[in-house]
Amino acid sequence: MLAHAGLLMRNLKMTLAYDGTEFCGWQEQPNQITVQGTVQTVLTEIDGAPVTAHGSGRTDAGVHALGQAASFNLSNPIPVENLSRAMNHLLPDAIRVLKVEEAAPDFHARRSAVAKTYEYRIWREDVCAPFLSRYVCPHPYPLDEDAMTEAASLFAGTHDFCSLAAAGGEEKQTTVRTIYSSQLHRDGGCLIYRVRGNGFLYRMVRNMVGTLLDVGRRNLKPDDVGRILASKERSEAGPTAPARGLFLVEVDY
Amino acid sequence: MLAHAGLLMRNLKMTLAYDGTEFCGWQEQPNQITVQGTVQTVLTEIDGAPVTAHGSGRTDAGVHALGQAASFNLSNPIPVENLSRAMNHLLPDAIRVLKVEEAAPDFHARRSAVAKTYEYRIWREDVCAPFLSRYVCPHPYPLDEDAMTEAASLFAGTHDFCSLAAAGGEEKQTTVRTIYSSQLHRDGGCLIYRVRGNGFLYRMVRNMVGTLLDVGRRNLKPDDVGRILASKERSEAGPTAPARGLFLVEVDY
Repeated sequence: MLAHAGLLMRNLKMTLAYDGTEFCGWQEQPNQITVQGTVQTVLTEIDGAPVTAHGSGRTDAGVHALGQAASFNLSNPIPVENLSRAMNHLLPDAIRVLKVEEAAPDFHARRSAVAKTYEYRIWREDVCAPFLSRYVCPHPYPLDEDAMTEAASLFAGTHDFCSLAAAGGEEKQTTVRTIYSSQLHRDGGCLIYRVRGNGFLYRMVRNMVGTLLDVGRRNLKPDDVGRILASKERSEAGPTAPARGLFLVEVDY
Repeated sequence: MLAHAGLLMRNLKMTLAYDGTEFCGWQEQPNQITVQGTVQTVLTEIDGAPVTAHGSGRTDAGVHALGQAASFNLSNPIPVENLSRAMNHLLPDAIRVLKVEEAAPDFHARRSAVAKTYEYRIWREDVCAPFLSRYVCPHPYPLDEDAMTEAASLFAGTHDFCSLAAAGGEEKQTTVRTIYSSQLHRDGGCLIYRVRGNGFLYRMVRNMVGTLLDVGRRNLKPDDVGRILASKERSEAGPTAPARGLFLVEVDY
């Protein structure tokens, strides 16, 4: 620490990919191995003093990230390329730093975020290759994919997503969010739901996917999406889809 | 068992894919979780009597399979499609049965095999995505890939591969094998070695790759391949490459 005394604290932004399978989610928790906790341990080792990494938001246990963003202060003057390399040397293979960059003093990964993109991968074939099983939710049973596609489009726009939020999220002043795009597409045996919005409530994407799956099973009709949103009742929407199919793709600033 | 009494024993062939990361290799061993042991437990549960599954050959701990083959006898008259489905229901996600088919009475997955194909995946970029790390060997340092390509081609043909076999293999009458093709190619950030031959000695593919990496690092020249083969000395060849980059792709009959 002495070596850095007198230097201004730097504000940095990092972009991370991780396989969430073996972590108890992003957020630091006592006696649990979490992504945030693991990243902070490494940053603290590099800086010689406790470092807090603020993520763009939490991801649940088993949820993956292709491009999670986090901001943190560092006193160590190490160049960003070297910091990225040092972190990857110290981190487990399941977490990779893709980029570290200098950020404006007021940059904050959660508060500065303007949009996030998530993908949910549903495996539609009978047999799921063992190499994919951590990264998809298998559903080899009949689904009305046309109805799901129609229902997905109805999430787009500005709505109160209260009925799609699980209890236990951080306190928010509003449950209104704007979804910029909400689309299903096929990639071989994989049915992919991709959604981009200005923010997401706790478990909202997994609850949207659970609702789409209920439409696919014809337990709900596409038109029910409007009714579910208007009800503001969690019990009206579908169940929470499993974590392993979900990826935080990117965070826009 | 009573239900099947008097029925002829069926001889079946199955094709399996597995993620070898969390198994102590293919071969059954006391007090270890192995692929063969796991598959046999499931078959024994289905048949009601002990079933032995003969693999086309062993794979080491951490080695994966896209198409391992195994033969086994079953008294249960269950149709092959249902057997495949029942096995996948009972097996862990890391092992998938791709196909079960009726085989000739004298078919034996090891003795009847006429060729095998392996692939070894070397990751060449600085950062390896967490979703790939179980399936590639990272090597972000300089490699003379042209020299490696030339060296790889020199393994083709019929040679005594004694110098590329690890101790501990099954007793064989000969260490001569015929390699039908041996080639390197690039697929994005991945350098892929693909080799097909009539048989492989214990750890032979990983020792071939270790030798190719030594050529890539310019510790050996491509022409050294001939000398290494002629020496019949394990110490002349390169080190054993890590297991996690290796896939048994297919077995031909």
